[in-house]
Amino acid sequence: MSVRFYNCRILTMEDNKVTEGELWTENDRISYIGPSADKGDKVFDREIDCKGGLLMPGLKNAHTHSAMTFSRSLADEYCLNDWLFKAIFPREAKLTAESVYWLSKLAYAEYLSGGITACFDMYFEKDANAKAAVETGFRHVFCGAANDFGGMEELEDFYDRLNSYDPLVSFIYGFHAEYTTCEDNLKKISELAHKYEAPVFAHISETKAEVDGCIERYGCTPAVLFDRLGIYDFGGGGFHCVWFTDEDRDIFKKRGLWSVFNACSNLKLASGITPVYKFIANDMKIAIGTDGAGSNNSLSMFREMYLDTVLSNVETGNAAAVDPFTILKAGTTGGALCMGLKDSDVLAVGKKADIILIDMNRPSMQPENNIARNIVYSADNSVVKMTMIDGKILYEDGKYSTLDLDEVIRECNKLMKDLA
Amino acid sequence: MSVRFYNCRILTMEDNKVTEGELWTENDRISYIGPSADKGDKVFDREIDCKGGLLMPGLKNAHTHSAMTFSRSLADEYCLNDWLFKAIFPREAKLTAESVYWLSKLAYAEYLSGGITACFDMYFEKDANAKAAVETGFRHVFCGAANDFGGMEELEDFYDRLNSYDPLVSFIYGFHAEYTTCEDNLKKISELAHKYEAPVFAHISETKAEVDGCIERYGCTPAVLFDRLGIYDFGGGGFHCVWFTDEDRDIFKKRGLWSVFNACSNLKLASGITPVYKFIANDMKIAIGTDGAGSNNSLSMFREMYLDTVLSNVETGNAAAVDPFTILKAGTTGGALCMGLKDSDVLAVGKKADIILIDMNRPSMQPENNIARNIVYSADNSVVKMTMIDGKILYEDGKYSTLDLDEVIRECNKLMKDLA
Repeated sequence: MSVRFYNCRILTMEDNKVTEGELWTENDRISYIGPSADKGDKVFDREIDCKGGLLMPGLKNAHTHSAMTFSRSLADEYCLNDWLFKAIFPREAKLTAESVYWLSKLAYAEYLSGGITACFDMYFEKDANAKAAVETGFRHVFCGAANDFGGMEELEDFYDRLNSYDPLVSFIYGFHAEYTTCEDNLKKISELAHKYEAPVFAHISETKAEVDGCIERYGCTPAVLFDRLGIYDFGGGGFHCVWFTDEDRDIFKKRGLWSVFNACSNLKLASGITPVYKFIANDMKIAIGTDGAGSNNSLSMFREMYLDTVLSNVETGNAAAVDPFTILKAGTTGGALCMGLKDSDVLAVGKKADIILIDMNRPSMQPENNIARNIVYSADNSVVKMTMIDGKILYEDGKYSTLDLDEVIRECNKLMKDLA
Repeated sequence: MSVRFYNCRILTMEDNKVTEGELWTENDRISYIGPSADKGDKVFDREIDCKGGLLMPGLKNAHTHSAMTFSRSLADEYCLNDWLFKAIFPREAKLTAESVYWLSKLAYAEYLSGGITACFDMYFEKDANAKAAVETGFRHVFCGAANDFGGMEELEDFYDRLNSYDPLVSFIYGFHAEYTTCEDNLKKISELAHKYEAPVFAHISETKAEVDGCIERYGCTPAVLFDRLGIYDFGGGGFHCVWFTDEDRDIFKKRGLWSVFNACSNLKLASGITPVYKFIANDMKIAIGTDGAGSNNSLSMFREMYLDTVLSNVETGNAAAVDPFTILKAGTTGGALCMGLKDSDVLAVGKKADIILIDMNRPSMQPENNIARNIVYSADNSVVKMTMIDGKILYEDGKYSTLDLDEVIRECNKLMKDLA
């Protein structure tokens, strides 16, 4: 597959400049970016007139639980504990490999419609999920989900198996969180990190109660504990990071660990507001994720990026607390590097063709005072005209090339009855 | 124009029930809502298969400055004061009637694409704006924008003239805010309210500095002052209401005044977070607006409704602090009643055909655990398939019937050069 995009603007994310020109792809890679060029006698499978639209790297959803689409708007009149124990856990116990397959496909449909080209996903039934990813053509990075209730024994197997399953799929070590993983298991995870010289990720400091509990159990915060146990000796990071102390931030900074923000979920579950501006002031590695559909409830990276700027404004009383371009970087290149996708971070020749086309003819994208800011402050899924992963156009003008959306919706609603 | 919508779900907003059936329109009104009916030999101008989509009342943007689209992403690295004095005021001084005409049309395009069927707008060059509204077919309620720098003399003239200009256009008394309007002018506005037995609206308690200043000047909050001056003797309300005291809320409750929330603008400008849950606990009249594009920067009511639920969660530490259906009511029927549109509040026979069609085949609207919650928690402009105002389809599948969007975008970008 080769595609020529012409009559477009391009934001490579290598810098904060929008240029005019063309972008060509050849198989899974970008083969040309630059001014309108003489294509000579080169024949493309498709030539797309972008009509002034903007090409940029796909958004990277750096923390999610894709198959939790079943829990969207499900009994969310409950507070967190009741919601988990009365609505979520009983249904999760009934989830089968087939459920996860269809529910993940529904999430992929939403990701593609929102310009997301990769996700960093922590959930179970990984084999069924990997099948759904490869069928869809979606770039799926699995995060280990081990805790005291399961998943410890399979970690190494997943690491070996899912990292050689398909180029679209990879696996990174991870565990649920400190409060669900005893010290023995944390030590085993640290051993795996050392054996494979591999990064490790986990939920971290999502709620104040979690941090208080860790201090009670270990006399320190989760970040200090994981650091002390050697879990972070080969990198990695954490999801949420809402209640980080300055010391936690210093550890993450010193070790080059990734802080992944989940603003919508933290608001809805009343977990708190992450002081994003402090991470940026400390020049830390940051990325952004949606968390699962039950606690967000959308899977839109645009809403996340918006909140990661303006929530810092209101927290600091400074209407320019966070530079929106820094947040756009976190949502694209940051996410890619966080989940080990070194070839999907920016648009450049030789990089993976994980590209989205923003429709600049949507009213929310006008006037063009600052295109990058329009995306952070004003965009939503309605501006996404096309989503390409690995050089294949998977979504265009509301249509999917590899997903039968009607079938996915039908199957998901059918299985909701089984879960009831 | 008569339209038959069939194969649809209907949320009338008279209650929290989604029914299946049909909806018919005849000229500007709804003529039938109910189960699939035998249409006999009735001929419709159009029959639309909604494919299971949801019909509901259009969203009502109950506080905005439409023509401020020029200020989207404009120099917003400045903090509020510099932004106003260096970027906004010098450009507003250059705005002409023609600028306001085009900039308002750009806002209408965005409203329609986001399922908004009416706006409550405070700005200047009202005649040019009214022309744009009628040409577009948009339902535009003007709010007086008087203050010490202008607009006082024209108030009564606008009231008479714009209320008889066109059925799509109306005018409600209003002034900018306490801190820009001296006591003499406030008294004159009160006299007009009494002369016409008319409601009055203004910005109120948007920032802490505004409230502190009012207390310094008058020894009381803006709400107490306006109440004392008789401004609210025939109803009305205020925009923002971020820093309301319990006494302010009691005044608004006692008098049946409207509190209009603007969450996005308040976050971005670092004004604060409105405790929406307190207004709901007090059973007050509430509505929702986007504010202008410079301080939001989108004009999406979906993002507002989302934030009006989850920000109360995080403020209270209660993940179910605000019932999302209450917020959906505020965004539809509340807004309509707030701006005097008594026939545009719900879907019912004889009511105005101000209707939107939500595409339930967007992944973010699935599964259908709770359709109303999906709209508040997960929707964005991408789910809006059709927007009808006064019985006319103005937006459908991304296309406009009364606006030449290319021309609007071209004109707006051209005039940005004149404003530079």
